[in-house]
Amino acid sequence: MEKRELLFDGNEKQVYATDDPSLVIFHFKDVLTAYTGVKRAVLKHKGIVCNAISSRLFSFLESNGVRTHFVEKLSDRDQICRKVDAIPLEMIVCNYVNGPLTERLGMEEGARPSDTIIDLRYNREELGEPLINDSEAIALGIVTKEELASLYVTAHKVVSVMDGLFSGCGLKLIDIKLEFGRDASGKIILCDEISPDTCRIWDASNDEKLDKDRFRLDLGDIVASYTSIAMKLGALTE
Amino acid sequence: MEKRELLFDGNEKQVYATDDPSLVIFHFKDVLTAYTGVKRAVLKHKGIVCNAISSRLFSFLESNGVRTHFVEKLSDRDQICRKVDAIPLEMIVCNYVNGPLTERLGMEEGARPSDTIIDLRYNREELGEPLINDSEAIALGIVTKEELASLYVTAHKVVSVMDGLFSGCGLKLIDIKLEFGRDASGKIILCDEISPDTCRIWDASNDEKLDKDRFRLDLGDIVASYTSIAMKLGALTE
Repeated sequence: MEKRELLFDGNEKQVYATDDPSLVIFHFKDVLTAYTGVKRAVLKHKGIVCNAISSRLFSFLESNGVRTHFVEKLSDRDQICRKVDAIPLEMIVCNYVNGPLTERLGMEEGARPSDTIIDLRYNREELGEPLINDSEAIALGIVTKEELASLYVTAHKVVSVMDGLFSGCGLKLIDIKLEFGRDASGKIILCDEISPDTCRIWDASNDEKLDKDRFRLDLGDIVASYTSIAMKLGALTE
Repeated sequence: MEKRELLFDGNEKQVYATDDPSLVIFHFKDVLTAYTGVKRAVLKHKGIVCNAISSRLFSFLESNGVRTHFVEKLSDRDQICRKVDAIPLEMIVCNYVNGPLTERLGMEEGARPSDTIIDLRYNREELGEPLINDSEAIALGIVTKEELASLYVTAHKVVSVMDGLFSGCGLKLIDIKLEFGRDASGKIILCDEISPDTCRIWDASNDEKLDKDRFRLDLGDIVASYTSIAMKLGALTE
């Protein structure tokens, strides 16, 4: 399968058309951005590691009954995905309390809430990706009440199975950012990327941050940490 | 009934103990504050008008089956209320889209959402009264899931009956801030104040803002506007 027209040129990824109108190719770049694009770096091999991890996690979720956009890993930096009409919502699924919740609500970092906390953000960069709640997402026509209910069910399932996987690999899943889209038939499926760029992941043995917080907080060794996650998950072997 | 110990000295109100441990006296001051206390003014008679409106609206809600802290109006500036243990949540119930929703989510001011939008804020001044969602309020132990469900039912009922009342008086109810507390038996009841300090209210004939937005936006004639609301609601006759 060959890349055709460039459909989207994002900070971290490019999306290309293919000869099959229902499929696209995601190309992972070595760029890393934070704070809605304000902080930016180029980190050699980062795209290769994120493509490996995201491919591994989407395959794992598919095998656990979660419908996703992922079809297959094509090469080091490329993967084939179903084309979707993106839903402009981010679901931030918090398995453990982390930085943003600590800052906003004064909750203790690292504490495990009695039930998973899920925040919605409106994926509109010009508004600063603000918090949005169910009634607002429905009022804006982004999703119906029934669709939103099914997204919550999926989000709970994703965090449960990923929490299990990560625990088995010596990792602690702190939070995940999930994005969804509608496929050609209108069915909502999980899409985007799941990697240390979009999750908070700690080393289970010492609570060391291994994810994009290393970049946000200038902790260094970013690609090495991402690679250690990939190896623990069996997404990379070298 | 006499005022005893001063229990709470807020910006706009004081709360006094009485000889009955289950009752307190709310005393309405002439102070008006906005932006979490950053903007402040003293406006003659404001407290009298807000006490009159809040007494009228709480009586009206009680007569419509909403359990509240309100017992009776005692004097121009004082009212007797049941003592409650305050729940540190604000429910912002939006009947029409207004300023904060327009700024945060880009929604059109004055539009009527297909269903009422309800935002929760965590009533912690030191955190800037941040947005909080259901899963966070439950994780923080502020309310149980069942309590929160009943608060939403009450909020929908309050906005429905108040929308009816206001429509009949030539007023348009844009939004209301509701606060709740637990009475001596642990039952959750509506409390605080309902007035142009805590609601957005427009003149139905021309969409003129009549509430605290006149203060926030420096539109002037604040007490005159509050008084016009009081007269339309039959809370004041002069």
